[in-house]
Amino acid sequence: MVSHTSEAFGNNAADLAGTQYVYDFDEPSGGGRELLGGKGVGLAEMTLMGLPVPQGFTITTDACRAYMRTHDLPDGLEAEVSEHIERLEAKTGKRFGSHDDPLLVSVRSGAAISMPGMMDTILNLGLNDEAAAGLAARTGNRRFAYDSYRRLIQMFGEVVDGIAPHRFENTLSDLKAERGVTLDTDLSADDLELLVQQFKAIYLEAKGEEFPADAKKQLLRAVRAVFDSWDTPRAQVYRRANEISDEIGTAVNVVQMVFGNKGDGSGTGVAFTRNPSTGVREVYGEFLANAQGEDVVAGIRTPQPVEAMASTLPGAYDQLLETMRRLEEHYRDMQDIEFTIEDDHLYLLQTRAAKRTSAAALKAAVSMVDEGLISMEEAVSRIDAAQLDQLLHPGIDPNATHEVAAKGLNASPGAASGGIVFDADTAVEKAKNGPVVLVRFETTPDDIHGMIAAEGILTVHGGMTSHAAVVARGMGKPCVAGCEGLEIRPGVAIIGGVELREGDRITIDGGTGRVFLGEIPLVPPQLNEDLETVLGWADELRRLKVRANADTPEDAARAREFGAQGIGLCRTEHMFFGEERLPVVQEMILAENEAGRRAALDRLLPFQQADFDGIFSAMAGLPVTIRLLDPPLHEFLPHEAEATDDRMRARIRSLKEQNPMLGSRGCRLGLMYPEIYEMQIRAIARAAAAVKSRLGDAPLVEIMHPLIGFREEFHRLKELTEKVWAEEAPGIEHQVGTMIELPRACVQAGSIAEEAEFFSFGTNDLTQTTLGFSRDDAEGKFLTRYLEDGVLERNPFEVLDQEGVGDLMRIGIERGRATRPGMKIGICGEHGGEPRSVRFCHGLGLDYVSCSPFRVPVARLAAAQAALEESGAARYVAAGG
Amino acid sequence: MVSHTSEAFGNNAADLAGTQYVYDFDEPSGGGRELLGGKGVGLAEMTLMGLPVPQGFTITTDACRAYMRTHDLPDGLEAEVSEHIERLEAKTGKRFGSHDDPLLVSVRSGAAISMPGMMDTILNLGLNDEAAAGLAARTGNRRFAYDSYRRLIQMFGEVVDGIAPHRFENTLSDLKAERGVTLDTDLSADDLELLVQQFKAIYLEAKGEEFPADAKKQLLRAVRAVFDSWDTPRAQVYRRANEISDEIGTAVNVVQMVFGNKGDGSGTGVAFTRNPSTGVREVYGEFLANAQGEDVVAGIRTPQPVEAMASTLPGAYDQLLETMRRLEEHYRDMQDIEFTIEDDHLYLLQTRAAKRTSAAALKAAVSMVDEGLISMEEAVSRIDAAQLDQLLHPGIDPNATHEVAAKGLNASPGAASGGIVFDADTAVEKAKNGPVVLVRFETTPDDIHGMIAAEGILTVHGGMTSHAAVVARGMGKPCVAGCEGLEIRPGVAIIGGVELREGDRITIDGGTGRVFLGEIPLVPPQLNEDLETVLGWADELRRLKVRANADTPEDAARAREFGAQGIGLCRTEHMFFGEERLPVVQEMILAENEAGRRAALDRLLPFQQADFDGIFSAMAGLPVTIRLLDPPLHEFLPHEAEATDDRMRARIRSLKEQNPMLGSRGCRLGLMYPEIYEMQIRAIARAAAAVKSRLGDAPLVEIMHPLIGFREEFHRLKELTEKVWAEEAPGIEHQVGTMIELPRACVQAGSIAEEAEFFSFGTNDLTQTTLGFSRDDAEGKFLTRYLEDGVLERNPFEVLDQEGVGDLMRIGIERGRATRPGMKIGICGEHGGEPRSVRFCHGLGLDYVSCSPFRVPVARLAAAQAALEESGAARYVAAGG
Repeated sequence: MVSHTSEAFGNNAADLAGTQYVYDFDEPSGGGRELLGGKGVGLAEMTLMGLPVPQGFTITTDACRAYMRTHDLPDGLEAEVSEHIERLEAKTGKRFGSHDDPLLVSVRSGAAISMPGMMDTILNLGLNDEAAAGLAARTGNRRFAYDSYRRLIQMFGEVVDGIAPHRFENTLSDLKAERGVTLDTDLSADDLELLVQQFKAIYLEAKGEEFPADAKKQLLRAVRAVFDSWDTPRAQVYRRANEISDEIGTAVNVVQMVFGNKGDGSGTGVAFTRNPSTGVREVYGEFLANAQGEDVVAGIRTPQPVEAMASTLPGAYDQLLETMRRLEEHYRDMQDIEFTIEDDHLYLLQTRAAKRTSAAALKAAVSMVDEGLISMEEAVSRIDAAQLDQLLHPGIDPNATHEVAAKGLNASPGAASGGIVFDADTAVEKAKNGPVVLVRFETTPDDIHGMIAAEGILTVHGGMTSHAAVVARGMGKPCVAGCEGLEIRPGVAIIGGVELREGDRITIDGGTGRVFLGEIPLVPPQLNEDLETVLGWADELRRLKVRANADTPEDAARAREFGAQGIGLCRTEHMFFGEERLPVVQEMILAENEAGRRAALDRLLPFQQADFDGIFSAMAGLPVTIRLLDPPLHEFLPHEAEATDDRMRARIRSLKEQNPMLGSRGCRLGLMYPEIYEMQIRAIARAAAAVKSRLGDAPLVEIMHPLIGFREEFHRLKELTEKVWAEEAPGIEHQVGTMIELPRACVQAGSIAEEAEFFSFGTNDLTQTTLGFSRDDAEGKFLTRYLEDGVLERNPFEVLDQEGVGDLMRIGIERGRATRPGMKIGICGEHGGEPRSVRFCHGLGLDYVSCSPFRVPVARLAAAQAALEESGAARYVAAGG
Repeated sequence: MVSHTSEAFGNNAADLAGTQYVYDFDEPSGGGRELLGGKGVGLAEMTLMGLPVPQGFTITTDACRAYMRTHDLPDGLEAEVSEHIERLEAKTGKRFGSHDDPLLVSVRSGAAISMPGMMDTILNLGLNDEAAAGLAARTGNRRFAYDSYRRLIQMFGEVVDGIAPHRFENTLSDLKAERGVTLDTDLSADDLELLVQQFKAIYLEAKGEEFPADAKKQLLRAVRAVFDSWDTPRAQVYRRANEISDEIGTAVNVVQMVFGNKGDGSGTGVAFTRNPSTGVREVYGEFLANAQGEDVVAGIRTPQPVEAMASTLPGAYDQLLETMRRLEEHYRDMQDIEFTIEDDHLYLLQTRAAKRTSAAALKAAVSMVDEGLISMEEAVSRIDAAQLDQLLHPGIDPNATHEVAAKGLNASPGAASGGIVFDADTAVEKAKNGPVVLVRFETTPDDIHGMIAAEGILTVHGGMTSHAAVVARGMGKPCVAGCEGLEIRPGVAIIGGVELREGDRITIDGGTGRVFLGEIPLVPPQLNEDLETVLGWADELRRLKVRANADTPEDAARAREFGAQGIGLCRTEHMFFGEERLPVVQEMILAENEAGRRAALDRLLPFQQADFDGIFSAMAGLPVTIRLLDPPLHEFLPHEAEATDDRMRARIRSLKEQNPMLGSRGCRLGLMYPEIYEMQIRAIARAAAAVKSRLGDAPLVEIMHPLIGFREEFHRLKELTEKVWAEEAPGIEHQVGTMIELPRACVQAGSIAEEAEFFSFGTNDLTQTTLGFSRDDAEGKFLTRYLEDGVLERNPFEVLDQEGVGDLMRIGIERGRATRPGMKIGICGEHGGEPRSVRFCHGLGLDYVSCSPFRVPVARLAAAQAALEESGAARYVAAGG
């Protein structure tokens, strides 16, 4: 996968012969963000708009990629940089390295995608002892000159040469203490000149050589440092976490210095064109007078709100407001800018699309449509579908303070607080008196009633697609899985070293994987009008239908509220659990013969029928796909050690399998014990008939046989289905189809489609079999390692593996529809609610995606974005979405 | 699969409108064996040749299929039968149902493939009280008339109406006892007339109605009985075992009776044109005077050798010899015929290709080429490749008498005798003093040294592709797996109810799955000159190369003897076992860090290098494909309960997986612990360099990375491989490629082939993942049930699933070779030695198949047959082959 992405950016050494590596901001490069980086492309575009941007040039990502291959600057780069420095000298009338009127520059990294962990900025390059003196003389501002110089030595020492920051900071603190001042700005020019000497001494001691006085050398070393910082572990980790290819590299911007540290008529700040938390159109930003950029971040002095400039620097402030208006109009999106004021003159150093909360994104998008700034299509395409999730669950109050006690996988979003319980029965019992959090080594289908009763689930074991994670997501219930700092001993949970017992309170945040001791205030889901508005637009635009995976009447009702157009997957096995049912199910499994099984099944039938009645009532008029029993029967029995008698023990042993994922499950159960499926079909048919006669409108029932690999399997089960249906619900509309979740089913789709009336891709299992990855064994083990090492860029259980699983889907669709033109085909795996995968499904020509109720809004939006992308109507679709 | 096969024969009801269901033997039908059945087509062909065949007609398999759909004779059939009976009357001058000179007929089933368990024959239809009297009068032979009549009632009663045979037989015995005679032929005409009355009484009592006197009714009921018998459980079981589709149906032959029971000038017999045990050209058959067909089978009277006819019926005998010569010349193959002599006139009732032993098939084929009867190509195409296996292993002496004590799966062919041992170490110890048979619940890689030491392996658990089965087949060692009549308790094996202790002797026959108590004489493998001759011809004809799967120098040498053209799969994990090695391997697995692992690996390296040195020496000049470590590491540790300390226990637990088949194995190990693969590559490279310098000729080493699903996996491992190779064996030829054993690898073959230099399809695992069948869990469980119930026709682990797995292979080959034209591609799964799968591989355009050494001759032959089929040079390829 890495190599695939690298191809998009690919150019090998041969292609690069004669490549131009450096472009002035006002020079057409023919490249965009991939070539110039985000910062570079913004500076070039603002220059073109005639906005006040300092002069400068960008060294392209091509140069970075060449550097990564050879660990040396590519041939010709140095000469090109020299040439561009000369042009900059010509434009500014200053000379780089001059002792008299030195040209100073900043060096700023800028990848196509903004990325913390990389070297950011070095200011004031070009200074040395003589140049500082020259700058002091020419500006008549010694304090400014030495302030700039000491900043250069510190930044260069830290960033380029890896000298520990505290060595410089301690020295600065000591000097301030000596002078009895608290702010850097209270130091005199002499103090700063002394500081320069001290910093140079630190540099010499740490590096064994003098701070480089040569401006050109400073510049080239800074460029290399930017390139090297691309491969720091922190940057790698960030890229992994954000699924950014290692291969894209970064650009470097060399910008003429403008100075915010020239006195009170100068300063530096950041501003947003709208409030990034709420999306409301208002001035929002911070400003620090007499400072250079890093002071704002360092937090030593508290910045003022940007509005304060209105009184202190009214001219620059007006210019700033006007510039922000022009930028938003130009980019037709919220911008986040960096600026410097030098002697009351505004300079823009950066502009980019503002990061914003989901709520803000929605508000801004809706407002911009109202303002006529963007179209409805643009608004829809601009919301990050993946980020929507945060709106749909309660979260930790951002104003609460709290310490993280342990961390696990963010298995199911939302936050929950409650007293801990260690087993499902206790969860049900204790939940009557107050909220509980179920804490388990891992969950099994036995725990379902406890998971239903609990506010949230916390497990030691398991990955993003473990039982706990999948079920919790389906329920829309917070879950932190695979929590490393959690240990369970009898009656005790140890979280971050603290021993907790039943009833002790914890809070989990399933959106981030964090676990806290005690109860932390939560904020409710931020469902709002803006979301409804945007989703309404999305519904007008999308072609893909969106259904929900729902197993209960409550889930079904919730799914409908979230806009689901039917149920794409109703798993019937969850109906086999519950106090009254499980013993009967076990009786069925332990029965010696078919008669014994039928006796037990007869008692289960009314339960199942009631479940289906509820679901059908909630979904009247819409399609409901019901999957017949799928999991291996041993999942309904306790562990061998907990068996109550020899008969059960023997049965547990006989059902034990080496690889249960590839064993006696799915339709294989239906063929080995047809009476089980017969009972389920009967319950479905009776419920459909009852709802029809009661409401006058039944859902379109779609009976789905799981794990079909051979047409003959389906043939026999379809016969059984039609036979029972004819007995129970003659004349009531229904269809019989299959999950496509085995590679064989994909290649044999043409044959299976001769009998199957619909397909639904079960991409969870299809991913397991196609890749040969057991999700239980991959996550936390080799798959985690693969993601860390970059063998894979994405977890294929979260984001559909388009080249592998996706290609088999394509084959399955082609062959299925060749046999049965226009056949209804959907997807009901976890991927059905993941925006990238939803877009891929749109491209494949699926009829619908089905996902957990809470992901339905996400899928609606992603489906609309896919339709827009296809029609070319969207200017861009939000990155990361 | 069933449905697929049915298509070959398919014709739905609509197609059948106006279909002709009945053809006279001398009437052109335009159909062959599929339409007329084997017997019908033989009768028609002999009629055309002018041989003495009674008149008659055939009711086609179309009629049978129509009957199976509706459970009634199809429209028009009755009329057609009547019409053909009328023609028969015209030809014979007799009338069906006449009391005076009745036309009598036999009804004989005849499917396309001969099949025991179906109704075979009813003779003498058309008789009733009056007709018997008429026949007696006209022939002047009352005894003959009533003998014929009593036979009809008995056969009809048993076969058509299901009356228990003993009821008729007891009555016959009682009568003989009463008369004081032992042979039926000693009964008088009066006795037989009495017997007719008694038989009719039995019929009336059993059925509540009189024996049907109406000839037409007799005939139609007999036809229905033949059709019904197609679906008896016994016939179904036979078809399942012999992989015959349920859908092909049977034809029915209605033949004018000729009578072997007219006196001493009459009789009936069977004969082969050559000896079916040895293939030698000689008269071989049996004859019974004054008898009808079923008497030979019933064994009440002992038949004479057919040569005896030379003196008793010289005219008929000469005619028989001449007829057999003509038949062999016509069919150019050994024939097995049924004949009747009526008053010294020969009549042929059936001819078919003779079933023969493998040795006989070879001898006959080679002789026929010598005799100029057939070409070399026909000889090669005629040998049943699957049957060859029986020649290549010792077998139970066919002359020994013995009782089967238990039965399991015929997991690896050949027979073995020895004292039983219950663990591998004891096997090694005891084998020093005499042959042992290793008896285990199931085997694991820990048992390899014991399996090597033992003569044969017997397990309670596991299927055809269990560890025991696969390893035993690889070793060419007899194995009976999944033996139901075997129970193991501490120190005791209970076989068929008998308690056995260590050292007690048993004999197993891995070719049939039978287990015997005590020692039974064995016969050595029947390798012979004829086989060499035929395989030599095969080698001239085939395009597919044949390699062997071999893990040791001994296997490699044996493989070369059997004609292997290299090693297609050398599994390196077996080299990790053995007294001196396993503890070091365990140390490696338990190591805390890479340094610890490397220390252990350094000690393993010389062992591996020595193994490779031996294999390369044996294979100098030929390609050797070495697969790097594949199984999950836990396979090298004991069970948790047997762990020696806490550290090991903890490690066992941490390595435990839910679905090890889809877990941390294959190249995933190589990427998680590169030092393991590095050691293996180093050992391979050093051995290659050493052999090259010693022998001047190294093999073409092909290093194969298992379980690749992503190009990036392969990319990293290839880099590692080339790095180590360059250090150890610069300049020595080698290739780096991959197993293709995941569906993802098939669809991404184009991308993987950008780096992989060869592919080898690992169809064992590819079958598991494509079908979602864990072979450990499928066989003996749902797969066995599927085969019993006819959901599947064949075990996909034995015979390649061409539509599913095969289609993915086709995709993989197309895409791989699109990237790398002419890429070398082979198969190294179990299927590489299965004749049908070998032919499919030929069709796919593979370069080679690789199989266990003992299957190499089978594969050589099958590959030649595939080439002949393709070129159309073969008149036919042996059925079942």
